[in-house]
Amino acid sequence: VSRLVTLLTDFGHTDSYVAEMKAALLRGAPAAVLVDITHEIPPGDVGAAQYLLGRSWRWFPEGTVHLAVVDPGVGTARRALAASSGGHGFVAPDNGLLSFLPNDAPIVELPVPEGASPTFHGRDLFAPAAARLACGAPLAALGSAVHDAYRSPIPAPRPTEGGGAIGAVIHVDRFGTLVTNLDSGSLERRQEVVVTGRRVPVRSTFGDVDRGALVAFLGSGGTLEIAMRDGSAAEALGAGVGTEVRTVGSRE
Amino acid sequence: VSRLVTLLTDFGHTDSYVAEMKAALLRGAPAAVLVDITHEIPPGDVGAAQYLLGRSWRWFPEGTVHLAVVDPGVGTARRALAASSGGHGFVAPDNGLLSFLPNDAPIVELPVPEGASPTFHGRDLFAPAAARLACGAPLAALGSAVHDAYRSPIPAPRPTEGGGAIGAVIHVDRFGTLVTNLDSGSLERRQEVVVTGRRVPVRSTFGDVDRGALVAFLGSGGTLEIAMRDGSAAEALGAGVGTEVRTVGSRE
Amino acid sequence: VSRLVTLLTDFGHTDSYVAEMKAALLRGAPAAVLVDITHEIPPGDVGAAQYLLGRSWRWFPEGTVHLAVVDPGVGTARRALAASSGGHGFVAPDNGLLSFLPNDAPIVELPVPEGASPTFHGRDLFAPAAARLACGAPLAALGSAVHDAYRSPIPAPRPTEGGGAIGAVIHVDRFGTLVTNLDSGSLERRQEVVVTGRRVPVRSTFGDVDRGALVAFLGSGGTLEIAMRDGSAAEALGAGVGTEVRTVGSRE
Repeated sequence: VSRLVTLLTDFGHTDSYVAEMKAALLRGAPAAVLVDITHEIPPGDVGAAQYLLGRSWRWFPEGTVHLAVVDPGVGTARRALAASSGGHGFVAPDNGLLSFLPNDAPIVELPVPEGASPTFHGRDLFAPAAARLACGAPLAALGSAVHDAYRSPIPAPRPTEGGGAIGAVIHVDRFGTLVTNLDSGSLERRQEVVVTGRRVPVRSTFGDVDRGALVAFLGSGGTLEIAMRDGSAAEALGAGVGTEVRTVGSRE
Repeated sequence: VSRLVTLLTDFGHTDSYVAEMKAALLRGAPAAVLVDITHEIPPGDVGAAQYLLGRSWRWFPEGTVHLAVVDPGVGTARRALAASSGGHGFVAPDNGLLSFLPNDAPIVELPVPEGASPTFHGRDLFAPAAARLACGAPLAALGSAVHDAYRSPIPAPRPTEGGGAIGAVIHVDRFGTLVTNLDSGSLERRQEVVVTGRRVPVRSTFGDVDRGALVAFLGSGGTLEIAMRDGSAAEALGAGVGTEVRTVGSRE
Repeated sequence: VSRLVTLLTDFGHTDSYVAEMKAALLRGAPAAVLVDITHEIPPGDVGAAQYLLGRSWRWFPEGTVHLAVVDPGVGTARRALAASSGGHGFVAPDNGLLSFLPNDAPIVELPVPEGASPTFHGRDLFAPAAARLACGAPLAALGSAVHDAYRSPIPAPRPTEGGGAIGAVIHVDRFGTLVTNLDSGSLERRQEVVVTGRRVPVRSTFGDVDRGALVAFLGSGGTLEIAMRDGSAAEALGAGVGTEVRTVGSRE
């Protein structure tokens, strides 16, 4: 069986850490096909890792194993986890990275292999576990069940008295587009959003506004995004992760 | 059949966009072997995309499919194209990116799949089309023929009265080497080039000049390059994309 | 046979050089599985290339071929080499990059193929040679034996009169952790190291010190590293490649 294994880390591209992790993966699962999600998570930013893995894992075919190592707690007592959901496997530290999984997803604790480097569990603990999942090992064979994994889900938007919703920017992409936590439900009958005091119309896509204009739309990750056609909304609005975004009716 | 699919985008490495596109590719063509050309095209820079794909595609074996998504017009009425040339397949937006193909290369317009995100055609339109080509689907099965694709080829150098040529820098590489549009024909019997007022000798390679010296040579992409041995010609000459480069005889 | 081929260069991610090299590899060895080590070696930094390949190659399975092109001497008379050690193959310029190999590793000189671009041996000389090794060609079939390859090994630490050792920082990783050339032997009974005048305790891992504290430990590459828990030791200590690191007993 040739299984897909995705990789997401904060290891960057200037060291050999990603390659050593891939070597460990391919030793354990020689037929695995590896796909990088990103290795440019800001060092230790578990929230960014959660957002990117949470939005992308479903696009991969069933049977894919997702290896995610953003692990500021490596070398402390934090646990190492493997999980299963929707026919996909997951391997990650117990720091909230997998909080996008449903509450009832089965999770196990991975033991630390003898001789593992205490500062590089990505290579010596997580990659070998992902390789075993990729080879078809059942989750229960990897460790004992855990029922109290640490959860820190991306906050949900809160409703306003006027029937709108107050959310926040949860990611800024390469193009300066602001991704929010406002879902399609929050947008019903709402025709504008307010960000840093500016009103932005909700439309379908870029083509609905002029070049250089701001536009909000339901983005490719399933939540509201605020973008500038041929420009950077983040720059134009002075907004970033955490900036409040409020939906309003057009005459509110 | 295991077909190669290359990817070239301006998506960068900090988001999950490239991975979601690869997921769509591997869903449609599970045996495809993926090779990244680059994802660091400056946002929306169709000219840079055209140069890099135009110089690299021929190095891949026949049957390779090239998926190129630098698409500032996503979400507008611009068309989506697939093309065929020299036994290779191409998938890209209709914005001039494929202008390096011969005028008579067959091109079809790709329909927008139902449910496609209007702001992420890379994942929902272009990748599935590339997957079909990689699986052996004939071009004509993907859409109806297009005869008026938008073309914006890299400008050719123009001849001077003295028998020389005036060209321009079309790319600056990581090493600060200036790649021009001057081809080997322009160089015939020309022994120097002039850039930002400086004369640079035309030689075969770095070894023909001293360390720290400027040298022009026929580069690995088939056109004249101006480089500094153990340094950056772009910095030394204050030159960049668009800078004029003129060939002269050594005694002109 | 599907062989692994690793790639390490200073080509960066903004050009098509890596992709053209991969095209040449896959033309010659269609079943090869490619793994990038890094392409972000600072331009021409042979020492960084040596460190990263030297620490990572052993993690790959026997039979892997390592293609390393950090080649400031391309276009000069420097030789091109292929080597063999521990069942792995190596292809690199003769500039000291392979100095981590044992003195008696067999090495051959690769001829320059006719028509090779004099400024891009990565694509036209090194990649085809790596492809042949990946297809199972014996080293001796690739060229004639070389017994005087250029060697510039990473300097060893030197012992002090008090029984300690003086070494140096040889790499700074993405997290600002300082990797030194001090091996486990240097650390015996030594309880502290001194860097830029600061004493740092030697412990096992991050969890042994408080957040924001400095700690030294035997790192994942087999030598002493100096790190800051949840921070950058390089920044905190104002240290970089070449900075002296001295081991001391705790009461010295």
